Amino acid sequence: MFEELKELVWKANLDLVKEGLVLKTFGNASAVDRQKGCFAIKPSGVPYDVLKPEHIVIVSLEDGKVMEGNYNPSSDTATHRELYLSFSQIGGIVHTHSLYATAWAQACKEIPALGTTHADYAYGSIPCTRQMRPDEIKNDYETNTGKVIVERFNGINPLDFPCVLVASHGPFTWGKDAHSAVESAVILEFLAKLALQTFLINPEIQQISQSLLDKHFFRKHGANAYYGQKTNNQI
Amino acid sequence: MFEELKELVWKANLDLVKEGLVLKTFGNASAVDRQKGCFAIKPSGVPYDVLKPEHIVIVSLEDGKVMEGNYNPSSDTATHRELYLSFSQIGGIVHTHSLYATAWAQACKEIPALGTTHADYAYGSIPCTRQMRPDEIKNDYETNTGKVIVERFNGINPLDFPCVLVASHGPFTWGKDAHSAVESAVILEFLAKLALQTFLINPEIQQISQSLLDKHFFRKHGANAYYGQKTNNQI
Amino acid sequence: MFEELKELVWKANLDLVKEGLVLKTFGNASAVDRQKGCFAIKPSGVPYDVLKPEHIVIVSLEDGKVMEGNYNPSSDTATHRELYLSFSQIGGIVHTHSLYATAWAQACKEIPALGTTHADYAYGSIPCTRQMRPDEIKNDYETNTGKVIVERFNGINPLDFPCVLVASHGPFTWGKDAHSAVESAVILEFLAKLALQTFLINPEIQQISQSLLDKHFFRKHGANAYYGQKTNNQI
Amino acid sequence: MFEELKELVWKANLDLVKEGLVLKTFGNASAVDRQKGCFAIKPSGVPYDVLKPEHIVIVSLEDGKVMEGNYNPSSDTATHRELYLSFSQIGGIVHTHSLYATAWAQACKEIPALGTTHADYAYGSIPCTRQMRPDEIKNDYETNTGKVIVERFNGINPLDFPCVLVASHGPFTWGKDAHSAVESAVILEFLAKLALQTFLINPEIQQISQSLLDKHFFRKHGANAYYGQKTNNQI
Repeated sequence: MFEELKELVWKANLDLVKEGLVLKTFGNASAVDRQKGCFAIKPSGVPYDVLKPEHIVIVSLEDGKVMEGNYNPSSDTATHRELYLSFSQIGGIVHTHSLYATAWAQACKEIPALGTTHADYAYGSIPCTRQMRPDEIKNDYETNTGKVIVERFNGINPLDFPCVLVASHGPFTWGKDAHSAVESAVILEFLAKLALQTFLINPEIQQISQSLLDKHFFRKHGANAYYGQKTNNQI
Repeated sequence: MFEELKELVWKANLDLVKEGLVLKTFGNASAVDRQKGCFAIKPSGVPYDVLKPEHIVIVSLEDGKVMEGNYNPSSDTATHRELYLSFSQIGGIVHTHSLYATAWAQACKEIPALGTTHADYAYGSIPCTRQMRPDEIKNDYETNTGKVIVERFNGINPLDFPCVLVASHGPFTWGKDAHSAVESAVILEFLAKLALQTFLINPEIQQISQSLLDKHFFRKHGANAYYGQKTNNQI
Repeated sequence: MFEELKELVWKANLDLVKEGLVLKTFGNASAVDRQKGCFAIKPSGVPYDVLKPEHIVIVSLEDGKVMEGNYNPSSDTATHRELYLSFSQIGGIVHTHSLYATAWAQACKEIPALGTTHADYAYGSIPCTRQMRPDEIKNDYETNTGKVIVERFNGINPLDFPCVLVASHGPFTWGKDAHSAVESAVILEFLAKLALQTFLINPEIQQISQSLLDKHFFRKHGANAYYGQKTNNQI
Repeated sequence: MFEELKELVWKANLDLVKEGLVLKTFGNASAVDRQKGCFAIKPSGVPYDVLKPEHIVIVSLEDGKVMEGNYNPSSDTATHRELYLSFSQIGGIVHTHSLYATAWAQACKEIPALGTTHADYAYGSIPCTRQMRPDEIKNDYETNTGKVIVERFNGINPLDFPCVLVASHGPFTWGKDAHSAVESAVILEFLAKLALQTFLINPEIQQISQSLLDKHFFRKHGANAYYGQKTNNQI
């Protein structure tokens, strides 16, 4: 019943490895099926080299319980669920401990838009959550991780910033589907590395101008985008 | 009619991937045919792994319009055209978002000649453009990107510095043909990384002496070059 | 008689190469057989590409003498023996000169727990030994290297911190077997690189809260761990 | 007549590429045959992927002239010759523009011995030459490059430090043969990278103690070395 969704999520998880974004069993990808009210996610702590589509776990959006699958879902499952419930525009989520994005998250710093590569992807600084309180950590930690992300995005369109840094933890990224979420994780990692090198060269550098941010972001996103091919003329 | 030119530009674009200079669909290579009054360039937003020679777009030097091809040319096409029109010595252009060259561009800093590796390639600091003004960004942005490059090269031979950093954006490189432009992008990326590491070791280091710059640049370029083999004795 | 142990240690040594943790012949892995009172270790100075299981040397735990094998054991053998004698919980040891862990060891700095990736692995700062005294270096250097490690772990459970930095030298890691020790070396190297990047972004950053450290460490370790699959339901 | 020597030097040059030490055509390896009074060296500016043993050039130690070969020898040939003439203990030389060693050379800084990895290889700071004077650069530049290296080694055994940094230029390494010179270039590059990371973690760190330097250097070199296997018991 969920074969296609499982296959897709399995592939997205393997793509994280191929892209060099995960170490050991750290990291996970999921995708939602809103009509069926569920999402598919990686089982917890399973090495990627033995992962098969049938290991992928199906979890109910409504109550967070396993609907299909013999394995424990990722320990971050409740965070994914929180995001799917709050961000109705997204179809896939990725969590990694990729080096540079995690370094910014550990540094508890937002990544400012220092150039057009960044502006092509996100409409301003990459958001970083506040630190979680001891009570939020002690109980329902993974759900609360989702809640501080949602809190940070108050009034922000999650597709204008397809990612977040969870303070002292690491990045979550998303997109219209699992594949886009993986792509977002790849680009975020590059931007995180690029921003660090930029500051090493010039610690005084400031965010780019609003004109340049607008130009590049809207060249690729929204009604007036002119980057790429028309959808009826894809290669 | 343009089969050879397309094949060459297709290969140059794939070489950018092989050399690790591009992320996703970012980056493009082009080559000019001055006799036919046109240049060939990558289509916009096309993944490199599906790119074929027949996707390459032929654009008129005179008016910037597509002469042959079914796809939108690179969104940076107008920048390439500006450079071909102003720099009559060059035959190929490459634009990438390669990590270290882009970091210097984002830092809005020229890369000083800190050693002989640099002097073998460019006759002084790698130029960086000024910031573009809001009006230059809002209208004809890509054409104006070309214009600020040309402005920066006022009185400079573009073959003495086969590259430029566009402030807050990234590098453009060039050469006598598309292959040389790719090679130039590879070397620029190495020099950019090397210069950053050098400053991390010694923040006070200064540009090398004029004697050493002259020795290395003219050992490889111009009438008295003695590096390599005579053209009638190539391996 | 020791075929299985030798095979296992041989494989662990090759895994160090596969994981990119060793340069030339630097580095070694060992595993103990406490019932037989011995451990198996790499021969000294042998290139990994010619290493075979039969080259692995069997050393007595009791007196440190070779029990089986035609080659000199690793020059670090006496350090491994010291650790096996003092840390009864461990079954395998790895020593590398991996880049970032060695850089922290050379910097004589402990690696603070800056994020959850670290807390998943070690319950606080990665310990670093004190400098060794001239007399400790001059005589029985390798045994004394083991002794300063054990001294640093006074009162600490070595499985809460499966690794140590030997000041001015490099990392030793361990685990319940040789495979775990290799995995520990991989993760330590990642944490060491991650911590450096974090400090480059934010030199003022502090260790994470005790709540977050507890949450992540005990999510993966001890009686209440809930990461991964139940042991009777492994994939 | 020189087939074996050419084959050996050809292989050493390709090993530089395999080890990731060269960019484009930058870099060269040579080996000397002191009985025949000549050395073999890479031809100038030849891409490594088309290089064959028969392209290797044989140069006279006595007068620096080509004894056999149809191609121009490396532009650095006179530097190699100077070193062979002054350092009678060495049999092979390598010159690269490897990233981190070149960064230290460009920074005009010696690499201090910050740990045992360094002490295993060199008996103190990696030497760096003085800047060359305009007259030394203008005439007989490559010969003078050799002369400033030899000047820096006044009273030093070149096998205690199998490498040098030429200020504003890059590293030369050597050894008893071409293979050792390549190995030396690999290790130097690692030490250069390691030292930079160490300083980024702790800018105040000092050179290791004389005791530790002695211990590690003489554990591997000289009459009392005990690292590795006895020469009559190599694997």
